[in-house]
Amino acid sequence: MLITPGKLLAQINNPKDLRKLDPLQLVQVCEELRHFIIDNVSVYGGHFGASLGVVELTVALHYVFNTPHDQLVWDVGHQAYGHKILTGRRDVFHTNRVYGGISGFPKRKESEYDTFGVGHSSTSVSAALGMAVASKYQNLTDKQHIAVIGDGALTGGMAFEALNHAGVSDTNVLIILNDNCMSIDPNVGALKDYLTDITTSKTYNRFKDDVWNLLGKLSAFGKSAQEIVSKIENGIKSTLLSHSNLFESLNLRYFGPVDGHDVDHLVAVLNDLKSIKGPKILHCVTVKGKGYGPAEKGNATTWHAPGTFDKISGEIHKKVYDQPQAPKYQDVFGHSLVELARQNEKIVGITPAMPSGSSMNIMMKEMPERAFDVGIAEQHAVTFSAGLATQGLIPFCNIYSSFMQRAYDQVIHDVCIQNLPVNFCLDRAGFAGADGPTHHGAYDIAYFRCIPNMIVSAPMNEQELRNLMFTAQLPRAGQAFSIRYPRGQGVMPHWRTAFERIEVGKGRMIQDGEEVAILSFGHIGNYAVEACRLLSKEEIYPAHFDLRFAKPLDEEMLHEVFRRFSRIITLEDGCIQGGVGSAVVEFMADHGYAARVVRLGIPDQVVEHGEQQELHQECDMDTQGIVRAIKNMLQIPVSHR
Amino acid sequence: MLITPGKLLAQINNPKDLRKLDPLQLVQVCEELRHFIIDNVSVYGGHFGASLGVVELTVALHYVFNTPHDQLVWDVGHQAYGHKILTGRRDVFHTNRVYGGISGFPKRKESEYDTFGVGHSSTSVSAALGMAVASKYQNLTDKQHIAVIGDGALTGGMAFEALNHAGVSDTNVLIILNDNCMSIDPNVGALKDYLTDITTSKTYNRFKDDVWNLLGKLSAFGKSAQEIVSKIENGIKSTLLSHSNLFESLNLRYFGPVDGHDVDHLVAVLNDLKSIKGPKILHCVTVKGKGYGPAEKGNATTWHAPGTFDKISGEIHKKVYDQPQAPKYQDVFGHSLVELARQNEKIVGITPAMPSGSSMNIMMKEMPERAFDVGIAEQHAVTFSAGLATQGLIPFCNIYSSFMQRAYDQVIHDVCIQNLPVNFCLDRAGFAGADGPTHHGAYDIAYFRCIPNMIVSAPMNEQELRNLMFTAQLPRAGQAFSIRYPRGQGVMPHWRTAFERIEVGKGRMIQDGEEVAILSFGHIGNYAVEACRLLSKEEIYPAHFDLRFAKPLDEEMLHEVFRRFSRIITLEDGCIQGGVGSAVVEFMADHGYAARVVRLGIPDQVVEHGEQQELHQECDMDTQGIVRAIKNMLQIPVSHR
Repeated sequence: MLITPGKLLAQINNPKDLRKLDPLQLVQVCEELRHFIIDNVSVYGGHFGASLGVVELTVALHYVFNTPHDQLVWDVGHQAYGHKILTGRRDVFHTNRVYGGISGFPKRKESEYDTFGVGHSSTSVSAALGMAVASKYQNLTDKQHIAVIGDGALTGGMAFEALNHAGVSDTNVLIILNDNCMSIDPNVGALKDYLTDITTSKTYNRFKDDVWNLLGKLSAFGKSAQEIVSKIENGIKSTLLSHSNLFESLNLRYFGPVDGHDVDHLVAVLNDLKSIKGPKILHCVTVKGKGYGPAEKGNATTWHAPGTFDKISGEIHKKVYDQPQAPKYQDVFGHSLVELARQNEKIVGITPAMPSGSSMNIMMKEMPERAFDVGIAEQHAVTFSAGLATQGLIPFCNIYSSFMQRAYDQVIHDVCIQNLPVNFCLDRAGFAGADGPTHHGAYDIAYFRCIPNMIVSAPMNEQELRNLMFTAQLPRAGQAFSIRYPRGQGVMPHWRTAFERIEVGKGRMIQDGEEVAILSFGHIGNYAVEACRLLSKEEIYPAHFDLRFAKPLDEEMLHEVFRRFSRIITLEDGCIQGGVGSAVVEFMADHGYAARVVRLGIPDQVVEHGEQQELHQECDMDTQGIVRAIKNMLQIPVSHR
Repeated sequence: MLITPGKLLAQINNPKDLRKLDPLQLVQVCEELRHFIIDNVSVYGGHFGASLGVVELTVALHYVFNTPHDQLVWDVGHQAYGHKILTGRRDVFHTNRVYGGISGFPKRKESEYDTFGVGHSSTSVSAALGMAVASKYQNLTDKQHIAVIGDGALTGGMAFEALNHAGVSDTNVLIILNDNCMSIDPNVGALKDYLTDITTSKTYNRFKDDVWNLLGKLSAFGKSAQEIVSKIENGIKSTLLSHSNLFESLNLRYFGPVDGHDVDHLVAVLNDLKSIKGPKILHCVTVKGKGYGPAEKGNATTWHAPGTFDKISGEIHKKVYDQPQAPKYQDVFGHSLVELARQNEKIVGITPAMPSGSSMNIMMKEMPERAFDVGIAEQHAVTFSAGLATQGLIPFCNIYSSFMQRAYDQVIHDVCIQNLPVNFCLDRAGFAGADGPTHHGAYDIAYFRCIPNMIVSAPMNEQELRNLMFTAQLPRAGQAFSIRYPRGQGVMPHWRTAFERIEVGKGRMIQDGEEVAILSFGHIGNYAVEACRLLSKEEIYPAHFDLRFAKPLDEEMLHEVFRRFSRIITLEDGCIQGGVGSAVVEFMADHGYAARVVRLGIPDQVVEHGEQQELHQECDMDTQGIVRAIKNMLQIPVSHR
């Protein structure tokens, strides 16, 4: 289905075309841009609410600023659809998030207008400040640097680190706070309350004006009143004016709040700000899903990335299946955690701003006093969990694999060096799919395996996930316990199995065989099952072992494998360098075995976006890749793809 | 030399003893505690200024609160000497930071009073909040939770993440801001200016009182004035009172600033705060080095950890050498960076609050516009560097190996996925020595090696460091370039060699040999040189290769090694799991070689503090360890240690 852009939008091939338009036409451009996004996402899927919320801001920014000379940095980036459409990608926008198509996030190699690649939150101020400092050093005094950051992203600590630096930097950087009280789930924390306060109460700037006017009047009341006024005035000057605002405390000039959906006013304000030197912040209030009724009125979390939907009725398309389907791993986590927590009162849950993404919202609903959304704050989430563990509680801290990179030091410094029994559930481990390289959980096996006092496990199916979680909540003296599982569905439609303890460091044999042994880790082992089934038709019978633990390794099982097999394939949905295959070759070297070992996994390169299966195929780690690897090992000719 | 505690201090074996004293005796306790610290550090060395700055606070906290039932968390922890001395470690305090002795930081396994292990900055609020939430959940309503955090540590983003959560947590947590305008080097950033402002100007609380009084008086001026007053009052209520303070913006009740050296007042204030529920912050103003003239008056950075010194004269002992000594690696970095920057105007330097620790201060002094101290903010430092790189500058971002853990996601997400040419210099790689496990740079080889677009290198000596830095600043299309080197001295007294380019991914042969090949990575290779020298006396002649690059590996050299040698030793000052030895066995497996490979490095456990050499010996990776490993391989009997 071809999406037709509106009359004006059809002429805008880049922001220069936009800037040729009369200011009076901008409202229509916004209208057309909004419809183009709605039309596309309803048919092709993708992120939704965030981009609709910044349509006017996007148009105003490209209208006022001289992009790409001026540097525009989007935080997180799933709100940048309008930006992409206005900057030369309108006609390929239907390939958004599709294998081989454009990325769902800004990406430097995709366009010169994408000044800084994103995906994770809270990086924009640091990046824009780096650019601004570079421009200052290079005497490019006219160059503008703009970071657009959401109120949710502002809770991420690195944004604060950047603001603290920006405030003393004397650079030309404009921070636009896109305040919609949301990240993916409703934003939490004191900052959100604060922003709501300054937005909904009398505005700060108006208050300032009022006070000045009033003080002027008061001074007519005679000498005594004048003294009082002067005292108040000094007090207000020193305290209220310089410090009354959180951002001004950090020496950023604060403007706003302004209506983020009034494109004409935005253009006027941005034009004014252009000529104001120094670090400054513009507070824009926007509505997620703006301009599309069902998204504005409905649940903003649902409409963050709704999948495809009927544009007219607002009905989100749901696949209908004849047979019961396997659940998502995240839901198995969410429900199993509640089941376990009902039996074990020491269990608590922690999520950094991902209640719906991790399915921690199930526990938050049933046991609100025991499940904590701490905001976009992975570092705090981990150390907060460590604090909980010191008091004898059993934290399950759920963080996406790629976001756990944010809390790496906290895992080492606050959990593992202290040998605290914290449980980490790493969702989205392995290829994340359409979100692409920033979200691929490629590195966690390698970066966790090297830490002492860390158990690294992965379930091959729903039952295994439940049993690993059950095991993780049993009393133990120390050690962090990590459980990684992928985005998407498992393999067991009937998944509510009885909990059973798994011995830590024990793998399992899936099937015995001959000539070749496959050692798989986690859900991706299901490809190996299928490969074995296919190979059996050709009378090839590999053995297949599910390692379950990358650390500690099941040494007993590995000794048996290396004694019996001289050809071994390792399989993991993670980087090959340093991963579980690397652990296996370390074992081989340490124990003096000599086998041919082929390690299948994510190669040492940035793998782009696409369906998980497409990416597994690209990396030769799907069923056919395993079949080929085995035939190669056995020197059986294979037909190349 | 035995340090004798004062009369009162001698009786205090734990805080219960302290709490038996009359309040009038506390000033003397502080005096004695201060002298005990001065006496000890002057003789045995250690951190100094920070602990002197919190003597009164330490005494007051343990006097007022019921430790260890009440949970006291020290941020960073090098200010906790007084705390250690008062909590049962007075008589072992001379073993502070010594191999086998007590740790220089709070440590859970050392004492029940050490509620949370530290070393890195900005963790205390998260940890204390976790404890407070656990206490609330467990109905321990009387339990108090106190985090003591410096103004420098407050610039670390995770502290802000924790404050944002604390503000909405409804828990009993007291955050004490120990404000001395310093971390190790003078604190930087907008927050510091802000704290200085609210401290030096009329205090916030007094201003509040004044305004209320004045408004009361004004309301006598008749109806018109009353209306005005009411308007101001509402405005002030909604804006000034709830938001006039950065901390109150985050919904933390703010108290102070108070004089952190008035122990009696501190006791009174803390007693008051004990009964005030909810999250709150007490702003204490202290002086680093307080009570010791030379430290108070002198350079606070020098007196952060001065080594041993003459207590009377304040003269810091400096070793005197007959012969020229090899420089510290950090100084080779600092001077070489300036040399390179003079020739290449695109070079800029970035340090997160470690100008003196990294020797970036040399560049900051000579080229202040090109070297940036961004505060305790590793995450921002890395993404800020990435922003600089997008504009064509060549950033050298210097971060201690263990602190780089804080910026792991930024390295992946903002640098390597985007393939930006940022240079990372990782100081304190390998064992850090007396600072212990929190500071050991044990994991960086493993955690960097698994990232695409990352070059991982390590110099074996000063000349190599210079040449790697020279190479890193030459134009290249992409890739991050990391150079890791240890704390302490190199091996070349005459180190100002001419710069030469090194081919990326090329190792070098140190000496040829037979039967066994040693593959070393970095400075630790000097042990191997010595081992070879010793072995030659027994007519054993190992070959020795300096890998130089853990990534990309010198495959040509490795092919030669594996073709010629069936016994290989790898040697690295980093974790064995996933490290460079692991890369070597991966290579072996990938290419079908079968050699006996023994990997020497940091074992999979938390290694405590001690001199670097002591720790290398403990881990069998020093000269004798290498000799033994080679003899074992050659099946030559060795005498066990």
